Amino acid sequence: MRIAVDVMGGDHGCGVVIEGVKRALEADDKITALYLSGKQEEIQDALQKAQLSDSRVQIVHASEVMTMEDKPTVALRKKKDSSIARAIDLVEQGKADAVISLGNTGGILTFATFKLRTLPGVDRAGIATVIPAPDNEFVLLDSGANIECKPLHLLQYAVMGSVYSREILGYKKPRVGLLSVGTEDGKGNELTLEAFKLCKQIDINFVGNVEGHDLFANHVDVVICDGFVGNIVLKTCESLAMGMFEMLKRELIRNPKRQLGAYLAQNAFRAIKRRMDPEIYGGAPLLGLNGIVMKSHGSAKERSIMNAIRITTESVHNQINQTICTEIQRANERLAATKSDVISSAQA
Amino acid sequence: MRIAVDVMGGDHGCGVVIEGVKRALEADDKITALYLSGKQEEIQDALQKAQLSDSRVQIVHASEVMTMEDKPTVALRKKKDSSIARAIDLVEQGKADAVISLGNTGGILTFATFKLRTLPGVDRAGIATVIPAPDNEFVLLDSGANIECKPLHLLQYAVMGSVYSREILGYKKPRVGLLSVGTEDGKGNELTLEAFKLCKQIDINFVGNVEGHDLFANHVDVVICDGFVGNIVLKTCESLAMGMFEMLKRELIRNPKRQLGAYLAQNAFRAIKRRMDPEIYGGAPLLGLNGIVMKSHGSAKERSIMNAIRITTESVHNQINQTICTEIQRANERLAATKSDVISSAQA
Repeated sequence: MRIAVDVMGGDHGCGVVIEGVKRALEADDKITALYLSGKQEEIQDALQKAQLSDSRVQIVHASEVMTMEDKPTVALRKKKDSSIARAIDLVEQGKADAVISLGNTGGILTFATFKLRTLPGVDRAGIATVIPAPDNEFVLLDSGANIECKPLHLLQYAVMGSVYSREILGYKKPRVGLLSVGTEDGKGNELTLEAFKLCKQIDINFVGNVEGHDLFANHVDVVICDGFVGNIVLKTCESLAMGMFEMLKRELIRNPKRQLGAYLAQNAFRAIKRRMDPEIYGGAPLLGLNGIVMKSHGSAKERSIMNAIRITTESVHNQINQTICTEIQRANERLAATKSDVISSAQA
Repeated sequence: MRIAVDVMGGDHGCGVVIEGVKRALEADDKITALYLSGKQEEIQDALQKAQLSDSRVQIVHASEVMTMEDKPTVALRKKKDSSIARAIDLVEQGKADAVISLGNTGGILTFATFKLRTLPGVDRAGIATVIPAPDNEFVLLDSGANIECKPLHLLQYAVMGSVYSREILGYKKPRVGLLSVGTEDGKGNELTLEAFKLCKQIDINFVGNVEGHDLFANHVDVVICDGFVGNIVLKTCESLAMGMFEMLKRELIRNPKRQLGAYLAQNAFRAIKRRMDPEIYGGAPLLGLNGIVMKSHGSAKERSIMNAIRITTESVHNQINQTICTEIQRANERLAATKSDVISSAQA
């Protein structure tokens, strides 16, 4: 298995990325080649510092870096020798099976869509973020790639999310829900009402509409929404979780009795922080592209990078994209059959 | 001040509502009349049980109740003698200054919009929910009334939310933000991009786009969005908060050491629960209607009802609706002036 890592786009420089790569290489001998895309000198320095000398590592020099400020469509034209471009090139050329980047999400999406194209039958890529809840983990798709969605995009997310939950998270028959303002069939906006009808027709475990209250109540394993709503939901959850930890901290240090209590119970707090840690998955895949593309948090550190590489190799190993293609094709056939049923019954 | 309370729509029957009313009457002598709308017999029983005999209380009999299952538009035609209809009638007829109900949100909205109409210059009512964050409280508007919004509706929410935050929550110059997928000016969907341009033109403290991360980070006091997004955000926050308390509880009882710690620190947990308790405000106003309308949680109990009445009387006392009218008019004048500026400069 051959993985390309864009080492340049993170907040902490390429050093931590290479530390993460080192740990991933140590843990996984199925990786046969690991390409590091970025500025050659910086990478060489970081390799030396990390004492990483592994014959599987190859540097792919790129003279430019896409920054968080770069407008994706402009970068696509102007930063052709950027580390993300070079890393994706390797997948396009068949030299790598997957690519990981910590950079600008919009940029990765733009470069990857342009160079790799979407899978047959898929119109738009979507970001699938795994979110921990008390009794399960759910996939939120799309969490920010596709701001203006069409109903058919949501249907495709339903199929892709279902495959991802099953193949990577191990849910045998993932419950797929459409995020809306109520659980009744008729609740929703124009987009979700139309998507609802489509999702009912295909062969997934579609549980219908779900609302915000269902998300952390073990009612759903795959939450489908447009990228505008998904991005807001994801970031709101991150913000509220941090807010609650902050409130808890302030209350716990308010007097010595509480401080002692907090000290005795500290492992409970640690367990929750660990459980809610976005570093567990290290990143979120951009599903629906003709190649495995993983976006890591800009602030990702070693463990996060290592985990992102692990999830990526699992995606390659479990042939996520082949399964998506098969199931998307089946869904499209179902939709076409229903449509022709409707037409023929109208003609009858 | 005269308040109408629809006592029928709650989950716990009319008894708890009347207990709440009793406490509110004891606490507030500015209330001169309190109408209880609902089934006369049930109300009389509950009054007796609560030992409430106050000359300000008047029963307004209504033979029907709108349930959570009732379709609002159908109820509007079929349940003309429902407790919510009768309560709103009192406001329409000028006998009450405000109305409070625990019932079906869509139903309250439909009846209130039909009977009271919106304020001059306001196209759609919106639900303003107050959400506690570590360092402030923000108003989320619209949190579920108006599923398909137009840009001008969001502008009107910006004005109304700003008034509410200032007059009821006491923020002198509330920071109003438009909920989007990034803080940069160009981020958003068709609706928010257009609303952004409008909000820039009027005289509020508009801080531009905010994203999910800003919500609990004291960056914004009034969060503007359409009712689809707002309802999902509100319910997701409630679900995540409950999920985190659940995870915490499970971790804290895992062994005796943690249990002791939890026991010593219990007041810290209580303080947070209190801080995040939706009962503090007891309800959310439907802003933009020609009358003060407060929606309480279906599960509201005494304290919550008492608080809802308190907020309602404050809204009446602070002349929220008069202020909204003035500021909406000023905003419309600004928009009209900008438009004519654009036209005259185009003609120049």
